[in-house]
Amino acid sequence: MYEGVNASDGYGIGVAQVAVAPDLSFTPTAPDDPEAEKARYNAALEKFVAQTNAQIDRMKESVGEEAALIMGAHIEFAEDDGIKDMVNGSIDSGMCAEQAVSEAYDMYFNMFSNMEDELFRERAADVADVKTGLLADLLGKEVVDLSTLPENSIVVVEELTPSMTADIDKKNVAGIITETGGRTSHSAIIARALEIPAVLSVADATKNIKTGDMVIIDGGAGKVLVSPSDHDLEHYRAKAKNFADEKAALETYRGKETVTGDGDKVLLVANIGNPEDANVAAEHDAEGVGLFRSEFLFMDASELPSEDEQFAAYQKVALRLKDQPVIIRTLDVGGDKEIPYLNLQKEENPFMGFRAVRYCLNNPEQYKVQLTALLRASAFGDIKIMLPLVTSLDEVRQAKALIEECKAELDARGVAYNKNIEVGTMIETPAASLIADDLAAECDFFSIGTNDLIGYTMCADRGNDRVSYLYEVYQPAVLRSLKRVISEGNKAGIMVGMCGEAAADPLLIPVLLSFGLSEFSVSAPSILRTRRIISEWTKAEADALTEKILKLKTASEVKAALQAAAK
Amino acid sequence: MYEGVNASDGYGIGVAQVAVAPDLSFTPTAPDDPEAEKARYNAALEKFVAQTNAQIDRMKESVGEEAALIMGAHIEFAEDDGIKDMVNGSIDSGMCAEQAVSEAYDMYFNMFSNMEDELFRERAADVADVKTGLLADLLGKEVVDLSTLPENSIVVVEELTPSMTADIDKKNVAGIITETGGRTSHSAIIARALEIPAVLSVADATKNIKTGDMVIIDGGAGKVLVSPSDHDLEHYRAKAKNFADEKAALETYRGKETVTGDGDKVLLVANIGNPEDANVAAEHDAEGVGLFRSEFLFMDASELPSEDEQFAAYQKVALRLKDQPVIIRTLDVGGDKEIPYLNLQKEENPFMGFRAVRYCLNNPEQYKVQLTALLRASAFGDIKIMLPLVTSLDEVRQAKALIEECKAELDARGVAYNKNIEVGTMIETPAASLIADDLAAECDFFSIGTNDLIGYTMCADRGNDRVSYLYEVYQPAVLRSLKRVISEGNKAGIMVGMCGEAAADPLLIPVLLSFGLSEFSVSAPSILRTRRIISEWTKAEADALTEKILKLKTASEVKAALQAAAK
Repeated sequence: MYEGVNASDGYGIGVAQVAVAPDLSFTPTAPDDPEAEKARYNAALEKFVAQTNAQIDRMKESVGEEAALIMGAHIEFAEDDGIKDMVNGSIDSGMCAEQAVSEAYDMYFNMFSNMEDELFRERAADVADVKTGLLADLLGKEVVDLSTLPENSIVVVEELTPSMTADIDKKNVAGIITETGGRTSHSAIIARALEIPAVLSVADATKNIKTGDMVIIDGGAGKVLVSPSDHDLEHYRAKAKNFADEKAALETYRGKETVTGDGDKVLLVANIGNPEDANVAAEHDAEGVGLFRSEFLFMDASELPSEDEQFAAYQKVALRLKDQPVIIRTLDVGGDKEIPYLNLQKEENPFMGFRAVRYCLNNPEQYKVQLTALLRASAFGDIKIMLPLVTSLDEVRQAKALIEECKAELDARGVAYNKNIEVGTMIETPAASLIADDLAAECDFFSIGTNDLIGYTMCADRGNDRVSYLYEVYQPAVLRSLKRVISEGNKAGIMVGMCGEAAADPLLIPVLLSFGLSEFSVSAPSILRTRRIISEWTKAEADALTEKILKLKTASEVKAALQAAAK
Repeated sequence: MYEGVNASDGYGIGVAQVAVAPDLSFTPTAPDDPEAEKARYNAALEKFVAQTNAQIDRMKESVGEEAALIMGAHIEFAEDDGIKDMVNGSIDSGMCAEQAVSEAYDMYFNMFSNMEDELFRERAADVADVKTGLLADLLGKEVVDLSTLPENSIVVVEELTPSMTADIDKKNVAGIITETGGRTSHSAIIARALEIPAVLSVADATKNIKTGDMVIIDGGAGKVLVSPSDHDLEHYRAKAKNFADEKAALETYRGKETVTGDGDKVLLVANIGNPEDANVAAEHDAEGVGLFRSEFLFMDASELPSEDEQFAAYQKVALRLKDQPVIIRTLDVGGDKEIPYLNLQKEENPFMGFRAVRYCLNNPEQYKVQLTALLRASAFGDIKIMLPLVTSLDEVRQAKALIEECKAELDARGVAYNKNIEVGTMIETPAASLIADDLAAECDFFSIGTNDLIGYTMCADRGNDRVSYLYEVYQPAVLRSLKRVISEGNKAGIMVGMCGEAAADPLLIPVLLSFGLSEFSVSAPSILRTRRIISEWTKAEADALTEKILKLKTASEVKAALQAAAK
């Protein structure tokens, strides 16, 4: 039995397929014809770029647009003029293409990895992946190919590189085991997106597991069993069945209203990332959309999307969801979201930088294009506008003033829109929580973004494993902030929702109900489970539990009390 | 008249000394003897490293240890094995040393600057500085030398490189003008440390100003007057005199108690960075130390300082300040403070990372060395222990448990210490503010670190110019947080102080008095002015002003109201 990082839930039972990187060693030669060597290099380069572009396209389909962006750096490092010049120069001075490629990429690799900076090190991994691709082609070797695995394969690799994930076919892969990576690594993100059970960072997995071994993966527990006993097989087959059964049981909540144990109605909606996701939300029985991230429109483009392009995307969701509410968040660029053509400066602390509504309000003409497109779409459904990363009332006032300008311009153009469109704000900063009463007086709704709110409140980057013990919604400081925001919003009579991951946290749902949260916006696959849990709590029960946990002074005490009370 | 960034206060009237970088162009040759070229390169390298080390030593004296660290990267890039191999390889393949150096450093420069990442770009500037130094030596040119300027010089340069600042003699330099840099640039930091008026980012300054021009600098306003009229000269000489007179008027507050207009006593103490600063604090009439940053002990070392080394430093301050309180903050590593030998990982968002008390509590044996040294020093003066970056009660409890372990070990060793030593916490995170009541119940004092508290509350990195409009102590959210912390501390009967820059903000002092702040810890040069302002406000006046500004909803309204009320 081996242990690793529990990166993607579920049980996988199948046959190991161990894929080890090919031997790319070579003996340097001194070729007579540098031009021929350069041609070999160029051919390898072209093939690599074409393959990578094809992989990006496949990934867009299998795991979505955002995940596909992971491959962008590969193209960048393949086509970098500095590196090309260096390789061609080395070939001119007598090296073979293999050596020239190897030395150039090694130099970049060493430089990046020696800087001991996370940004640099990530680049180093990309550089190594490009080198592998080019060398394999020059040497006529095959890089690891996961596109033709037999059914029920458990993939065992040192590292799941982006180029490998592009090839994974969900139908044949029952589980993934790697020797590197954490819960927030690219491998983990992709495994979860594909709903394939995965255990990462299993030391020496490719040595200890052989192709053909029978393997059980428990993705939720981060466990791997090799050559399991019959007893184990039986045990885990039962678990896998339970897992599937529970999924099926949730189906009884499909088509039902979302009500508490007392029969009080709350709104249960979905977070989506592009117009196609609106179908997924509807399939999972969401009652609307609580967070439509508009970044996809900007990330998938090579220049700013026009008003018409944006309008078409927003209108599509409005029409698809008919009379259901659709909250669309205006561009949340920056932080961990890069949009190359906006030419934003890199920042030392991007999460505390020039991002989201800050960028937009400082580029009002560009912002007005999005606001106008949103207004136009509001003629076709219940569209609401939401502002990200607000920290001051000024920002809300500026955004609302721009919306009024856009309305006047649409009036002049004779274009229809909802004159009473609601404008609300994310509550995801400590500042917004502190001035929630002032914000509530000038906003039509709140949506609490717990992902960022927890990070900023606890000063702990969500992506940083070393401070994950502080990044906890159960921290008394975070709970107090949530209570305050919901209470101030309710006092002002506006809707208070939550679109962070905490809204789907089974342990926290009774506390949120007690605080008075009236909208839960969760990922589509969490809709039915969230509806079930909401139905299990009466107000009196939720209040009693909440009163108790608010007296506790540490996150671990809070979590233990919630676990003890969970139904 | 030219305008620029107001980087260092004061008035400078003098004669311009325009220093333009030397022409380092050359015609590549193909030398016969590569070994001789390599020897030239090596000689230039040795000379450069020796010069840089000498500059580092001079900077340590003139501007302090921390500022001297700026030069560290130069040595790194001069002695980098990768670059050396590249230069020597190019010489072997027929280049002259100038070309080999130029191409190698250009390649690194281009690569760093093309990444469009702030970290990379800073490195690019270092690379360029090293290239200039090496090329100048190879070509027999002089780099800009600011060590032999006549008295009353106004230095005008494109950029104040670290190597130039090392040469500045405060006695001869009346002002500094550059074409690049902001308030937080190295140039600005050094100008302020040397108390030389400086205006940065003056476009085309080296073209528009000629050596010998009469120049007036108004560092506070960011203005530069070239060839001023007699009227201007008179005007600014009067201003310079006022500036000096005001400094002199503050002297009447020397030796006085710090009391409000009603005669209520508050504690006025200094922030210091090393034991020698304790003398500076005493010279400026501080009543103790409210923040002794212990980082210097770690940053100046090449390995962890021993218990005895730390004890000696803490004891020195305790003895120097006799019965005055000395609050020593335990190691606040990380964020913007690097200590190479601790091998901390670089982080994407270092301010939200593994730093300060997080690092220390995760390295308890190392932390206990510091805590033990602090306890031993407490036998010699009124030492108090302060924890940085607390976000949860767990952290305070863990630190106090470690202190109890250290006490037991000292008892066993028979070593004296103050058994009732006070243990307090910085309040510099939104989480700490939210749980201030719980923290107050288990801490002996609070010290509010506004520098970080503002940044975390507003999610705005203090070092990022593009979000500086949000980084404001006058933000309603920040004021509410301060009010809450001070009120909760007072309710619990513990001392509440402030060691952030806001404690010395003339506009904010009445508000802090009204909130009930009882200790102001400021930079030593701000002591007398802060004492004067505190003396000018009665409780009733401060309360009336504070009641008024708490009703305002934006930072600009708050600031305007405070300015209107300022005495």
